[in-house]
Amino acid sequence: MNLLMVLKSLGALLICEFLALTPSLLVAIYYKGEDIKAFLITMFIALALGTLAFSVKPKSKHIFTRDGFAIVALGWILISIIGALPLYLSGAIPSFVDSLFEASSGFSTTGATILTEVESLPRGILFWRSFTHWIGGMGVLVLTLAILPTLGTGAIQIMKAESPGPTPGKLVPRLKTTAKVLYSIYLAITVLQVVLLVIAGMPLYDSLIHTFGTLGTGGFSNMNSSVGAYNNVYIEVIITIFMFISGANFALYYYFFKGDIKALFKDGEFKFYSGVVIASIVFIAINLTGSVYSTFLEALRHSSFQVSSIITTTGYSSTDFNLWPDFSRTILLLLMFLGGCAGSTAGGIKNIRILLLLKAAKREVQRILHPRAVYPVRVSGKVVEDKVVTGVAVFFSVYMIIFIVALLLISIEGKDMVTNFSAVATTLGNVGPGLNIVGPMGNFSSFTDYSKLLFSFLMLVGRLEIYPMLLLLLPSFWKKVNI
Amino acid sequence: MNLLMVLKSLGALLICEFLALTPSLLVAIYYKGEDIKAFLITMFIALALGTLAFSVKPKSKHIFTRDGFAIVALGWILISIIGALPLYLSGAIPSFVDSLFEASSGFSTTGATILTEVESLPRGILFWRSFTHWIGGMGVLVLTLAILPTLGTGAIQIMKAESPGPTPGKLVPRLKTTAKVLYSIYLAITVLQVVLLVIAGMPLYDSLIHTFGTLGTGGFSNMNSSVGAYNNVYIEVIITIFMFISGANFALYYYFFKGDIKALFKDGEFKFYSGVVIASIVFIAINLTGSVYSTFLEALRHSSFQVSSIITTTGYSSTDFNLWPDFSRTILLLLMFLGGCAGSTAGGIKNIRILLLLKAAKREVQRILHPRAVYPVRVSGKVVEDKVVTGVAVFFSVYMIIFIVALLLISIEGKDMVTNFSAVATTLGNVGPGLNIVGPMGNFSSFTDYSKLLFSFLMLVGRLEIYPMLLLLLPSFWKKVNI
Repeated sequence: MNLLMVLKSLGALLICEFLALTPSLLVAIYYKGEDIKAFLITMFIALALGTLAFSVKPKSKHIFTRDGFAIVALGWILISIIGALPLYLSGAIPSFVDSLFEASSGFSTTGATILTEVESLPRGILFWRSFTHWIGGMGVLVLTLAILPTLGTGAIQIMKAESPGPTPGKLVPRLKTTAKVLYSIYLAITVLQVVLLVIAGMPLYDSLIHTFGTLGTGGFSNMNSSVGAYNNVYIEVIITIFMFISGANFALYYYFFKGDIKALFKDGEFKFYSGVVIASIVFIAINLTGSVYSTFLEALRHSSFQVSSIITTTGYSSTDFNLWPDFSRTILLLLMFLGGCAGSTAGGIKNIRILLLLKAAKREVQRILHPRAVYPVRVSGKVVEDKVVTGVAVFFSVYMIIFIVALLLISIEGKDMVTNFSAVATTLGNVGPGLNIVGPMGNFSSFTDYSKLLFSFLMLVGRLEIYPMLLLLLPSFWKKVNI
Repeated sequence: MNLLMVLKSLGALLICEFLALTPSLLVAIYYKGEDIKAFLITMFIALALGTLAFSVKPKSKHIFTRDGFAIVALGWILISIIGALPLYLSGAIPSFVDSLFEASSGFSTTGATILTEVESLPRGILFWRSFTHWIGGMGVLVLTLAILPTLGTGAIQIMKAESPGPTPGKLVPRLKTTAKVLYSIYLAITVLQVVLLVIAGMPLYDSLIHTFGTLGTGGFSNMNSSVGAYNNVYIEVIITIFMFISGANFALYYYFFKGDIKALFKDGEFKFYSGVVIASIVFIAINLTGSVYSTFLEALRHSSFQVSSIITTTGYSSTDFNLWPDFSRTILLLLMFLGGCAGSTAGGIKNIRILLLLKAAKREVQRILHPRAVYPVRVSGKVVEDKVVTGVAVFFSVYMIIFIVALLLISIEGKDMVTNFSAVATTLGNVGPGLNIVGPMGNFSSFTDYSKLLFSFLMLVGRLEIYPMLLLLLPSFWKKVNI
């Protein structure tokens, strides 16, 4: 491993976090909050450490696969620790473990919280908490690649490790340009949603907070009862649509803006994702009509919002879905595992993987009858290599294995099974709320520090699609360290 | 499909069921029960239909893969329907759907029940109910192959479809001899357990019932509170050990009896299985000490029995484990998915598959770092083909997909999530009891007929390791039907 190059990249990342903290400081200054000092201290630490680390001079400037994974895995842990400082230093969250949980939840775009009351917190702190969603969604390292001068050769390894999935990472030949294109599309959609929310009657500050939460599929709100607090059907519809948009592959929007509108409807994953969303909305709406809401339309309103929120792993709530019947709760729980599309800001296993598995399963059954026939697996009309199919099936298995190990580790605490199960699913899938104790009106505050640290780690594991964090735990990963 | 050959084989199977009913009739006659008539009617139906179907003369006597799957899938449904008749006709179970549930549960070696009270039932009926475990465990079609004259060429297809898994089916070159060898080992272990139980103080009748339930990893008892009713530590230890034995690959015992004692300790799956059993026993015992039992020894007694019972998918209970803390309940729930070893009478996903997946996951992580290196997956020192690894990963995914679809279909009924989740896991994994409503002291009687039929199907799906039943639902499976 090229240790100095890893260090240099982490320095660049910290400088980038310093820059990312600036808007929150400005908000704090604007509202004359008590949080200004906390931001200044944090920014000083980030800049000082960042400049120091960035100034090292590695012999070789090449980033190999192993280095890329180390930069991403360590980088995300590092920015979460530094990102927790404003929350802790301002006194908004008195415990550092709690602050770390909240920051990991922010960057990983989970939106799970240990806070029971958010409305009284300083405005700058709430802004920062939500802004982490926005940069965590598209990727902090992609951002670093986009705004800082070139780190070295092989930086594609960083992007591959941060934005994995079975789809390719580059839209245009140059990596830096790809990163810039992605952030430009992201920014354009952000501005659009803020404008629409303000028109619908939401204050500008709240609109920014909820747009960060929607686009990054995070889910932090500045209201205790989330989006439900506004009780405004226009706001709900806007957020529903933008959550759905954020759950799809952003590469599609690149083609869309370039004029290739058909790309959207040719994409196998997008069709599958849309199908699951529609089916889930209808089934839940039917289940809720009569039992929870008197009219189908009212049921449809809340089921669309909640399905869109959970499948995209955003986690906003328009109502307390924990009180819904278990059929609806079970569908939502399953959507937490599924998640959004590859190349989106959403978490979960991803639609493309489940679609590939379904096709591989069909092929396996056909193979039993015709062992010698060749059945290629096709998605969007293209043949998928066998190696990719195996990789996806193994990923699914690894996801479940990690889920199970985490479930056992959390179960030791003695909470009820549905709480444990949904808490692990919602953190690993980067959703936010779960069921029972961690339901949309509940939170993670009653867990021990041990469990909170585990959840923090799980959120980062889920955001980075498992392997970077898993590699960190592998002893052989640390062999061959070169300076 | 060679339809006449399928019909002929189903005929042979029914004749075999007629023979299998004889011991139960003798028990009924011995106890002068009211169930004699029900057995006579059922045996007449089985013999008449069986002889009729067996007498057809197919043009070709060759059994192709497709035919093998059709024989197995349809055969298991057929014997469950006929096997339900004594329960229904004797009046022991007034509803036919309930009788079918009970018979499917018996043959699939699940042991889930809709009965709230079993001790008052006729002795012949209880004997038949448990005897279905014994023949279902080793395989009804393996039995047919062992005792009836050769059906035709290609009968290996039947055995492959009934006893799947990634391990080969034949122990000796001749299929008929393999079937006989397996049943001889099975019979020898059966006699041994009956003798030991009688010595430990269990009545002969009860010993037979519990040996059938243990060896077949079924779990039906003639006592309302299962094995706990005897409150006899010797009986519990004997059953614990024999459940463990029945959860391992029977091929190992073949080598063991042939003198190759080392085979047991060289087998990767057996080592993994033993490791999981020991780890689960210890963790649960620690969790129960102090909270449920005052001493570690008492906790160990019940945790060994329950772990052995659940991992082997037997389902006997020595105590109401539904009252245990959620950490222990979660481990038991996960063991329901794992199940026993391939080539055993146990259900579940099987240890060899999970072991292969863990090794494939490790390889996947290594491949990230060294994309061009070749890492073969090895089990018991032998290299496993990539095709097999993919097949296993897909099987795991299909298992989870079926679990999820069934969970949603059962959730419609509105029972609580833990009941639904464990009920689907326990039927698909052929375990028997679940948690909450379907816990060891509960049963499946409160479900609707719709759910009971679904559970009956799930139990057969689980017993046949999914694909035969899945093929039945595939329209293309029914093409090319030849007479």
